[in-house]
Amino acid sequence: MEGGNRGLFDYGPPGTALQTNIGDAWRKHFVLEENILELNCTTLPPEPVLKTSGHVDKFADWMCKDPVKGEYLRADHLVESVLESRLSRGLNGPYKDSPKLEEAGASEYHNTLAKIDNYDGPELRELIKRLDVRNPDGNGEVNPPTPFNLMFKSTIGPSAAAPVYLRPETAQGQFLNFKKLLGYNQGAMPFASASVGKAYRNEILPRSGLLRVREFLMAEIEHYAVESSIVDNETLGYFLGRVMLFLLKIGLLTSYGWIECVGCADRSAFDLTVHSAYSGSPLVVKEVLSEPVRVEEWQAVLEKKLVGPRFKSDAKAILTSVEALDQTALEQLATQLTEKSSTFVELTSDLLAISKVTRTSNTREYSPNVIEPSFGIDRILYSLLEQVYWHRPHDAARAFRSVQVFSLPLAVAPTKVLIVPLSAQPQFMPIAHKLSARLRSLGISNNIDSSSASIGKRYARNDEPGTPLGITVDFDTLADGSLTLRDRDSMNQLRGSEDEVIQAVKNPAEGIESWEEISRRLQPSQTAMRT
Amino acid sequence: MEGGNRGLFDYGPPGTALQTNIGDAWRKHFVLEENILELNCTTLPPEPVLKTSGHVDKFADWMCKDPVKGEYLRADHLVESVLESRLSRGLNGPYKDSPKLEEAGASEYHNTLAKIDNYDGPELRELIKRLDVRNPDGNGEVNPPTPFNLMFKSTIGPSAAAPVYLRPETAQGQFLNFKKLLGYNQGAMPFASASVGKAYRNEILPRSGLLRVREFLMAEIEHYAVESSIVDNETLGYFLGRVMLFLLKIGLLTSYGWIECVGCADRSAFDLTVHSAYSGSPLVVKEVLSEPVRVEEWQAVLEKKLVGPRFKSDAKAILTSVEALDQTALEQLATQLTEKSSTFVELTSDLLAISKVTRTSNTREYSPNVIEPSFGIDRILYSLLEQVYWHRPHDAARAFRSVQVFSLPLAVAPTKVLIVPLSAQPQFMPIAHKLSARLRSLGISNNIDSSSASIGKRYARNDEPGTPLGITVDFDTLADGSLTLRDRDSMNQLRGSEDEVIQAVKNPAEGIESWEEISRRLQPSQTAMRT
Repeated sequence: MEGGNRGLFDYGPPGTALQTNIGDAWRKHFVLEENILELNCTTLPPEPVLKTSGHVDKFADWMCKDPVKGEYLRADHLVESVLESRLSRGLNGPYKDSPKLEEAGASEYHNTLAKIDNYDGPELRELIKRLDVRNPDGNGEVNPPTPFNLMFKSTIGPSAAAPVYLRPETAQGQFLNFKKLLGYNQGAMPFASASVGKAYRNEILPRSGLLRVREFLMAEIEHYAVESSIVDNETLGYFLGRVMLFLLKIGLLTSYGWIECVGCADRSAFDLTVHSAYSGSPLVVKEVLSEPVRVEEWQAVLEKKLVGPRFKSDAKAILTSVEALDQTALEQLATQLTEKSSTFVELTSDLLAISKVTRTSNTREYSPNVIEPSFGIDRILYSLLEQVYWHRPHDAARAFRSVQVFSLPLAVAPTKVLIVPLSAQPQFMPIAHKLSARLRSLGISNNIDSSSASIGKRYARNDEPGTPLGITVDFDTLADGSLTLRDRDSMNQLRGSEDEVIQAVKNPAEGIESWEEISRRLQPSQTAMRT
Repeated sequence: MEGGNRGLFDYGPPGTALQTNIGDAWRKHFVLEENILELNCTTLPPEPVLKTSGHVDKFADWMCKDPVKGEYLRADHLVESVLESRLSRGLNGPYKDSPKLEEAGASEYHNTLAKIDNYDGPELRELIKRLDVRNPDGNGEVNPPTPFNLMFKSTIGPSAAAPVYLRPETAQGQFLNFKKLLGYNQGAMPFASASVGKAYRNEILPRSGLLRVREFLMAEIEHYAVESSIVDNETLGYFLGRVMLFLLKIGLLTSYGWIECVGCADRSAFDLTVHSAYSGSPLVVKEVLSEPVRVEEWQAVLEKKLVGPRFKSDAKAILTSVEALDQTALEQLATQLTEKSSTFVELTSDLLAISKVTRTSNTREYSPNVIEPSFGIDRILYSLLEQVYWHRPHDAARAFRSVQVFSLPLAVAPTKVLIVPLSAQPQFMPIAHKLSARLRSLGISNNIDSSSASIGKRYARNDEPGTPLGITVDFDTLADGSLTLRDRDSMNQLRGSEDEVIQAVKNPAEGIESWEEISRRLQPSQTAMRT
């Protein structure tokens, strides 16, 4: 359900259960099976973190205002939709207030559309002007594109002077904790961290239901790899395989159309490096080498005997400043000192000597490369629903009614079992309630449908919310305790004792046994066709 | 780990697992076992919702600024800490810049402290002035209290004119969906909804670690009860029992000190009523009555034959306006018409007749009362850690080392099993890895500690993170496949086959069997004492 603000959704009970189940499957598949270190970081990271990562300055889309309508449009989407619309109306079709689209124009349009994600503001401005792109709603001209930062901004604490942003991704919180995670992993490399949580992007114009929203559930892995591009590619390949296994597990097989649900990015060492530089606390791995290596580096030697008398009480500050210089600064200063143009508090080469020295080292420090598989859970959920949806047509001969089915796998289906008492007569209900409670205590969600509709109709209307299994309580149950178990997709029915049927629900829910395997050990139901 | 902004925390791997496990236990105990309708609502609800609920105008704490220090202090906490400090220094002890505390003063202090939660801004101002309450940091006088709204405010969309707030509770999203939930529940009452998710409060001065933070995980139930105070009390009593069972399940038994972890509030019909009034879409239950009742109500009858000719094109608008009048407005208008002082578009009593009529009704509409058990998961987590922490002293005779233990129950412990190969020799490791993978596939988190420390030492250092069970792979395992299973709290050890030991881990993790029950069917380990 979409709320009063566009791009912000409420999930109802089945959607919530589906989202929770996908998240749980993700956690089991990655965090548990891969032994990944999971973090739960604040959604309001410190402002300097997002400044350092580049999000405050650069995490923006280009937007155009239609000054007449007062509407804001995302510039690349505007160009895209207008060009696509012109193309779809044919090469020689007219379009309002513009010349006819000639062969050469069409070819340029296709080229532009192929590169639409890569244009910056000035390029989009040029395109909009030259191709006379206007707001499709009213055909008005739009103002030139301006950048719009996608982060929600607020202030923290009572002073109203401290800015804070809702995080646009979970990754930064993971990077900040790199040193603690490395320590928790006893210094061993490689390893990975993960986070599942909300992220926020103040989209200019949310659209396409759950596909472009302003608040979404992200599941991100940051895999810290040693700095070698060959290993990175191996890691990427490994994760692509694991991602595919996960998507198969939750029932996502192929895709209609194209939407990015999972991105596997090579973030190199960018984030760890910029945070190291800002904080002065290097996010690096210290590796003990089996064979010592010789390291060439710049070294500063201050002539303390001369510096002390000359600078007196300032001498200590000078010493501290020199010690804080990094390799790049030392190299620059070395040149300045040689050229006698130093402005470094009147330090001259007799007071400060900077030279290249070679030392033997038993360790090496490096910033690991980061491979990032990032999952948009809401997009996965939406794509899954789109994919598992099908229509079972009416079939009078086999007494199938026309019904919409969501073939959600047992692992993620919101309700696992529908319990169907043959009728609302009092003898069936206590058995149904006892069965329901027993399944719940095993963590298996279920509903009882005790309405007066036929069993077939009650099953059919639970095929739409995707309930995978049904259990019928009937007169045979009263006689010998046996129950009928019905499979949503095949509509096949099996018969067994209460314990057998519960085991036949529990095992597939835990991924231990399939319906086919269960069909081999339980009896086909004799009452199957009467529904 | 607390981030750069106070009151915002990152949970590391054990904390994240513990929080997730408590959330899962909550969901199983309430949502699944009680068949509660779970929602996942946006954390950025529409602004009019929080305006209507009163949060925009009234969700504030009183704060005082120390103009010299530039510090902001929460007024009630300031008074509380200063009075407590004076009392603790004794009746006759001196305190800086204030007269001695006399008997009468002490008695007033105790009274004031007992009521500290109930004072409004003007009362706090009077107290601060009369009792000469100053900032303990520097003893400076503070400015009079001003209200500070606790919601984080941002803007949504590109126009920067649309305010939006991070939700301070999950409840409002649930109330807004009341009609959909009632429909989902097929109109049946009573029922309950629930949400687990982040909520935000921009505290003036966060403190006490996880106990007063700006971002926290809430789990809230809204139970919609029929409107009768007797039933409400029954419902409250029922939930108090369920809450207690839940806290016992996750290991929280008693409390040291006092901190509100769970609140069971009677919100009456307040929220549903104000949202109904604002939206004009009544959030009510329509109950079909077994016996029809007679309802007396105001009814407006417009003389269309006269209104049409007199107001011409405005007649339709007048009709619509009259139809939109509610009972209160009709009653007022009836009086005005009688007194001939109507300003309602010159309508007079010959055109519009308003009278009380009695009709027979087969339904009644009512706003249900709401009972709200609300859980602060972070506070529960913190209290749990505080409570299950103990110290096992050194005991040379029984070879126990001195160790800190977190006795977290199996249901919520971050890591369920520690696997300990007798040594790092290559023959043990494949068995340990196979066992680890088998447990992971069953959803049971585990770690292998293959360091060279003694088995006893490795167990001991995993008692602190609260790992409840340990499995040893030793020479007997090589000989007959048997494993030793060790209980963290009793340090008792049992021996069994791999299948037996895995079952003895899985059953207690699912709440099916206790350690005592397992002790009865497995053999005590012969190698127990050698650790």
